[in-house]
Amino acid sequence: MVRTDIEIARAARKRPIQEIGAKLGIPADALIPYGNDKAKVSAAFTGSLGGRPDGKLILVTAVNPTPAGEGKTTTTVGLGDGLARLGHRAVICIREASLGPCFGMKGGAAGGGLAQIVPMEEMNLHFTGDFHAITSAHNLLAALIDNHIYWGNALGLDSRRITWRRVMDMNDRALRDIVCSLGGVANGFPRQTGFDITVASEVMAILCLASDLADLQRRLGAIIVGYTSDRRPVTAHDLGADGAMTVLLKDAFQPNLVQTLENTPAFVHGGPFANIAHGCNSLIATRTALKLADYVVTEAGFGADLGAEKFMDIKCRIGGLSPDGVVLVATVRALKMNGGVGRAELGAEDVAAVRAGCANLGRHIENLRGFGVPVVVAINHFDGDTEAEIEAVRAYAAQYGVEAIPCTHWAEGGAGTQALARRVVDLAGESAAFSPLYPDEVPLFGKIETIARRIYRAEEVLADARIRARLQQWEEEGFGHLPVCMAKTQYSFSADPNLRGAPEGHSVPIREVRLCAGAGFVVAICGEIMTMPGLPSQPAAQAIGVNEDGQVDGLF
Amino acid sequence: MVRTDIEIARAARKRPIQEIGAKLGIPADALIPYGNDKAKVSAAFTGSLGGRPDGKLILVTAVNPTPAGEGKTTTTVGLGDGLARLGHRAVICIREASLGPCFGMKGGAAGGGLAQIVPMEEMNLHFTGDFHAITSAHNLLAALIDNHIYWGNALGLDSRRITWRRVMDMNDRALRDIVCSLGGVANGFPRQTGFDITVASEVMAILCLASDLADLQRRLGAIIVGYTSDRRPVTAHDLGADGAMTVLLKDAFQPNLVQTLENTPAFVHGGPFANIAHGCNSLIATRTALKLADYVVTEAGFGADLGAEKFMDIKCRIGGLSPDGVVLVATVRALKMNGGVGRAELGAEDVAAVRAGCANLGRHIENLRGFGVPVVVAINHFDGDTEAEIEAVRAYAAQYGVEAIPCTHWAEGGAGTQALARRVVDLAGESAAFSPLYPDEVPLFGKIETIARRIYRAEEVLADARIRARLQQWEEEGFGHLPVCMAKTQYSFSADPNLRGAPEGHSVPIREVRLCAGAGFVVAICGEIMTMPGLPSQPAAQAIGVNEDGQVDGLF
Repeated sequence: MVRTDIEIARAARKRPIQEIGAKLGIPADALIPYGNDKAKVSAAFTGSLGGRPDGKLILVTAVNPTPAGEGKTTTTVGLGDGLARLGHRAVICIREASLGPCFGMKGGAAGGGLAQIVPMEEMNLHFTGDFHAITSAHNLLAALIDNHIYWGNALGLDSRRITWRRVMDMNDRALRDIVCSLGGVANGFPRQTGFDITVASEVMAILCLASDLADLQRRLGAIIVGYTSDRRPVTAHDLGADGAMTVLLKDAFQPNLVQTLENTPAFVHGGPFANIAHGCNSLIATRTALKLADYVVTEAGFGADLGAEKFMDIKCRIGGLSPDGVVLVATVRALKMNGGVGRAELGAEDVAAVRAGCANLGRHIENLRGFGVPVVVAINHFDGDTEAEIEAVRAYAAQYGVEAIPCTHWAEGGAGTQALARRVVDLAGESAAFSPLYPDEVPLFGKIETIARRIYRAEEVLADARIRARLQQWEEEGFGHLPVCMAKTQYSFSADPNLRGAPEGHSVPIREVRLCAGAGFVVAICGEIMTMPGLPSQPAAQAIGVNEDGQVDGLF
Repeated sequence: MVRTDIEIARAARKRPIQEIGAKLGIPADALIPYGNDKAKVSAAFTGSLGGRPDGKLILVTAVNPTPAGEGKTTTTVGLGDGLARLGHRAVICIREASLGPCFGMKGGAAGGGLAQIVPMEEMNLHFTGDFHAITSAHNLLAALIDNHIYWGNALGLDSRRITWRRVMDMNDRALRDIVCSLGGVANGFPRQTGFDITVASEVMAILCLASDLADLQRRLGAIIVGYTSDRRPVTAHDLGADGAMTVLLKDAFQPNLVQTLENTPAFVHGGPFANIAHGCNSLIATRTALKLADYVVTEAGFGADLGAEKFMDIKCRIGGLSPDGVVLVATVRALKMNGGVGRAELGAEDVAAVRAGCANLGRHIENLRGFGVPVVVAINHFDGDTEAEIEAVRAYAAQYGVEAIPCTHWAEGGAGTQALARRVVDLAGESAAFSPLYPDEVPLFGKIETIARRIYRAEEVLADARIRARLQQWEEEGFGHLPVCMAKTQYSFSADPNLRGAPEGHSVPIREVRLCAGAGFVVAICGEIMTMPGLPSQPAAQAIGVNEDGQVDGLF
């Protein structure tokens, strides 16, 4: 009988977190325990590592997601375990999960099968409180804004031009659009605003891109909360909020250490949206990991067109990181769907569809190589995959001079990624020549065009005069050097989620642009982006409870 | 040079929390560490203590508060340390602090001088995340309400009769009164609602009154969130929310263990409002403490007219607790103010004013004795107090056959409460005959009258027909056995905050009544009660920051 992820996770033979830290040379007194299986790595320790050499940085990314599933996180975990089994000092870096959505749809494991990070329940609930701290810091700034207006508005904020909303880690559509400060003089000046979910907060993106506590405070202070009636930006620093926000975040800013089922160390830290933000775990976790391990395996949100591009052009650029290899995850099933097969027909062998879907794979390989980093394809094995289908993927990848290696980590853990791990070690031994897609100096609209043409293979970028004027204004205000964060559908290279495979010649319409002056990027929005989800008609919450053994039922 | 509380706290010689737990016989594996100086006591362990005998329960309460300060928490801590110095196994039980208000006015120590609980900074910030968990559980229920209406409202909730608001641990007046669900069909049905601060949540009161996880879930399920158009109550259980709320609270429900400057164990757990709720630390912390220690020193919010009455009539009644002694804290300064002296004149000796103010003290002594529990007065010493003033208090108390004992714990820690501690041991050795003020069977309005007449010494209770009808309706619905939680000004026995001393013959006007069916009490509101504070014109937040040593500046 096949065990579920939660059954496997509950049966995990976890080692005390101090023992996991010791594998990375972290002394016990540098670990701040949260229970026996979670710890934060102290700022004093992470701050002391500067002089050490860096290990190799491996990015795990994927083809465009389909309902068939790709298993990017599972492969990230499996590869980490595989490298550890080869005797390397390996560490995994992934994002934290958001609490709110677990009460709508079922929560998720970090990984799956025998390639998981634990403790699974805590990681889906409060974990070490990081997201609560982000919520507090975000909402303190919001309270200070309305309070400033209430007490005379010395900065002259135009209440119609306040862009800073509030956040909650909850799926609550009723809060998307509200009028606040009703009820008379004592409650302030009524205005329209709303709540986003916490992972959409710019504070989250900042926490994940800041290099140290001073940089964190500087970035928090740079947040633009709104504008005066003559369009001058007002920042969090203008409101005197940055110090208190930093205080609220100082514990959350320390990376969280946990472990895989095979006791490989894993940093699970930060979790920005992958559309309106950059979708990677925290820079400080990745940097700390690089100082402590020979191999750091990390991942980025969505497919390589969004996730890997943002990883390279935003996280690596801001953090001065240089990836040594990329693992591009594909499944036979996902390639079939990219080749036009419907979900119901995924069970039947269809080599031709696999071949057709490989166009998506090939496009990603080309794009990734454009960053100057060597690539290997991981075929995340599913039970129904046939040898002919796998061979079709292998042969297709070989045309690009890239190996495609089947992996069975879901069923076998790190034992199922030994071949992949060996190939990754080889690739990382080559001298990668990483460079981001565009230099800082390219104008903002030019950056959008570069991404659209070179990564999405679009013919043109559509944007009205208002949007172009705004980008130009930001350049005049000194923000022209920032990278661009594309908020596009993850299901296609194009802005149309139904265009699978490898479309080209399409148009990319820019509906809106936003300046995240604190995080340090400009967001270009190409479609509807939901920043506050709702609950379904039968929310998962209704089936969640504590069972007689004190375990959480219904969360998974 | 006098050191500040924060300087003293930072210089504390804290022992590892496992060592503090060991003083109470808590094995290390029953402690869930949060760093090295905080831990939660596992549910498995607290659940295993049932068969043990209880230690002695000592309540610390005070005269009516004045701007002069009484030092109730300081005395609670000092007494705990004093009992420990006498060789007794002692533990302190107090409430957790709320994060939000620290960004308005400066945060506070738990205690003061050499009678403090540490770590002070964490206890004013996120601590072990309990309040965040309460915020999440509360707001999940709110999201489920609007979601239920959105998806067809099968329960027939009348959107005008929803009483469940949302909460945030932040002083944010802009959220007091809002309209939510604006923006069209996708966002639901617009309605008026608002946010309270987290400590005002009924979930907080429930967490503090539940006896175990099953009782917690039962109480959460019993929360009434609103009414149908034909006035039938709709509960959290009807919405299927109670299981998920319990899951969110299961870690928070475990008591937090910390220590005093003298390494005496302290449980700091829960923090309900002392007006619309009962203002005591959690029942589970107190019960756990009683199983582990010879002496448990705890406190209740505000003066004895509110705090002690609620402790006796709500917490002890619901929890089956039986206090063994009461320490009534007074300061010479507070008695002078009760005797009519203004704040500016507190420095000068004024024995007559002290004598006049002792009327307040005497009234509280009489009231406390009415509960059948022996009383001792602690005179919390301030530098300017003269021997003649202290003697006046002593002589006054002696008329009631009560000792009044000067204490110098602020300056000397537990060494300053040795005489008080000895007297407490003597008192607790007598056989107390505790009984609450009224039996469960008294009708709700009768309970209000009993408290008003016997504790407040009021002539009458004023309530219009609407309020009396509502109380009667609740009795018909089966809630008549619940105790009453009075929400009255803390500054006077009367409902008029300016009436110091020992007023009598006044009227107590009931403006509003609320049913907390989950917490298990009916709230009677006698004045304006603010459930969402605002920030001042110069919020403390603007001066808060992390200094070069990584310490938090400006919080205190």
